[in-house]
Amino acid sequence: MALLSALTPVFVAVFCLILAFLFKSNQRGETKAVRAGSKQESMPAKLRPWVDDDLEDDTDIRPKDQDDGDWIESGEREEELDHVPYQECRYPVEVMVQRSQDFYTLMNQRRSVRFISSEPVPRQVIDNVIRTAGTAPSGAHTEPWTFVVVSDPEVKHQVRLVVEEEEEVNYRQRMGDKWVSDLQRLRTNWVKEYLDVAPYLVLVFKQTYGIVAGGKKKTHYYNEISVSISCGLLLAALQNAGLVTVTSTPLNCGPKLRLLLRRPANEKLLMLLPVGYPAADATVPALTRKPLDDILVHV
Amino acid sequence: MALLSALTPVFVAVFCLILAFLFKSNQRGETKAVRAGSKQESMPAKLRPWVDDDLEDDTDIRPKDQDDGDWIESGEREEELDHVPYQECRYPVEVMVQRSQDFYTLMNQRRSVRFISSEPVPRQVIDNVIRTAGTAPSGAHTEPWTFVVVSDPEVKHQVRLVVEEEEEVNYRQRMGDKWVSDLQRLRTNWVKEYLDVAPYLVLVFKQTYGIVAGGKKKTHYYNEISVSISCGLLLAALQNAGLVTVTSTPLNCGPKLRLLLRRPANEKLLMLLPVGYPAADATVPALTRKPLDDILVHV
Repeated sequence: MALLSALTPVFVAVFCLILAFLFKSNQRGETKAVRAGSKQESMPAKLRPWVDDDLEDDTDIRPKDQDDGDWIESGEREEELDHVPYQECRYPVEVMVQRSQDFYTLMNQRRSVRFISSEPVPRQVIDNVIRTAGTAPSGAHTEPWTFVVVSDPEVKHQVRLVVEEEEEVNYRQRMGDKWVSDLQRLRTNWVKEYLDVAPYLVLVFKQTYGIVAGGKKKTHYYNEISVSISCGLLLAALQNAGLVTVTSTPLNCGPKLRLLLRRPANEKLLMLLPVGYPAADATVPALTRKPLDDILVHV
Repeated sequence: MALLSALTPVFVAVFCLILAFLFKSNQRGETKAVRAGSKQESMPAKLRPWVDDDLEDDTDIRPKDQDDGDWIESGEREEELDHVPYQECRYPVEVMVQRSQDFYTLMNQRRSVRFISSEPVPRQVIDNVIRTAGTAPSGAHTEPWTFVVVSDPEVKHQVRLVVEEEEEVNYRQRMGDKWVSDLQRLRTNWVKEYLDVAPYLVLVFKQTYGIVAGGKKKTHYYNEISVSISCGLLLAALQNAGLVTVTSTPLNCGPKLRLLLRRPANEKLLMLLPVGYPAADATVPALTRKPLDDILVHV
């Protein structure tokens, strides 16, 4: 009994150390969860199914597995460029007002069309559309885009198989009732017939970094924003030519489509646009756009 | 002494509890650091200075402080929309080819111009340009954009002060030699005279979530990509009207500019575009664009 009493401090100490250990591993578990789900910490994963595992953010310009790669240093940069006079193209005021009105009218007729005709479209037009997309500005003029234009029927079908397989999982499991319901209004689902039918599929890849002569890597600042801006120009160019598309961001299809199209590891799929004439019986949801006062604030 | 001996277990227990407490707060500190730097875990913060603290990714659609807000549920969604025939605008093939060529030629004349004239520009043109930007597609037709057009000289100057203060820190500290050197070729630095001089500053905000009648919140899918696409249309509309801009993404200025312009918490600054005629002596760097073969892959 005296021995037991003498050992009491030891028992208490052991008990407290166990407590401390439990606290610690509990905390560590929490830290791990935060690390693993760093982008998902603020809400349950199931609520944010549109986070595409492959669609790395701008900020992930150096993917984890590339951290140790050979990046070019500031000393290796090109020389400063010459600066030349800007060639202005000025219209008289009334012409300018009319042009701005006409361009708005044309662009306002653009709709996302999911029913595309199989009728062929001259390749020259598609080339000009991509040329136009390539005039977009980009962070530090890095031009971080690759446009893969698929017209081969077999490859188009392979693309369809990949997209439909993933999209069915997206609709049934990843997206959740709320998102599916948001899209139901637009009668959108995972069956994408247009991927077989449209004469062209334009797969837009962002280059998360560049590769210069000698194999060294080059930072692509704001690559996702830059490529999205170039898609805006691409949509304008299609509309100007009388062609239609639907702007899609196929969730979780990126890696499979990148492999299918044999694109390098620095390229990530951002958008997939089927392009062609509209089908004769094409319909669109009777959507309206927000009035100017809802999107514009003058200060 | 006997009393002391009898109290030993208590001392040991207190000591161990202090240890446990220290462990715990240490771990908690680590957790906090991980939370705060969640987007930066894969590389040192200094390597990714272009990560704007305020520019939350698409995936952060529900900011931390909004987690407990009242979000609309799927049952509360609007009814399915009517679907109506799409009104096609078809051009004869040769006209289509010519239009695609002409539009490319026009857009290819666009340059980022940093020397803007103070000459006034009709507000009607700016309104049409913003209307055009508002025709962009968006995730589930959420139209997640707000364009704040500043023409008040005092507010323009306030914007300049905020931007130059942050940009100087960006250039001197946050960006690092490599990035600064990349921009030196373009003669870009933190002095932004055009912010005072340009007749309009267009500040483009992305709405990270929407607010519907009754104050409930609505998810804005892919809001950053959608707003960037609309900026592409905005750039096309400016070029079509003979106006110039420079597409800037002022790093870390978002929160201050949001407060200055009294925008709500769901809006994050994505881009800042000074708009006007080019200055008479405007120059641009003698950049070239990648040839078509470097950006287009036919399959």
